[in-house]
Amino acid sequence: MKARIKITLKNGVLDPQGKAIQSALGSLGFSGVNDVRQGKYIEVELAENNEAAAKDAIERMCKDLLANTVIENYSYELVA
Amino acid sequence: MKARIKITLKNGVLDPQGKAIQSALGSLGFSGVNDVRQGKYIEVELAENNEAAAKDAIERMCKDLLANTVIENYSYELVA
Repeated sequence: MKARIKITLKNGVLDPQGKAIQSALGSLGFSGVNDVRQGKYIEVELAENNEAAAKDAIERMCKDLLANTVIENYSYELVA
Repeated sequence: MKARIKITLKNGVLDPQGKAIQSALGSLGFSGVNDVRQGKYIEVELAENNEAAAKDAIERMCKDLLANTVIENYSYELVA
């Protein structure tokens, strides 16, 4: 199975990368950009085919390595 | 409107960050991880409420700044 994981900064956590993108978009002439937040996107290809077991493994991967749960949220979807 | 943009490396482009994550997952005892690819996830909050206009702006932002279309693909979804 494949897992598509999105990791985003929690609300209220300062996002300098997002602010830099927002300012660059402004310099390029894009107006009306109210906010930009940058996160990470990770695709993990698992040998596991059982959905429950895959979900459990991905949860543990996110908590142990991929996301810093103090400042980041994660969400994921599994595709066959 | 809000746009959720995913930027991923094209197939065949070497992804050292993904390989590092894969190897770290292995060291942590996660077996059965066949492949890991890391991309970027960007949320852009637009003042624009017209879907066609927002889509057009996001397309141009991706091509001009957010994605390097030589080595990266982008996809996005618009939410109200």
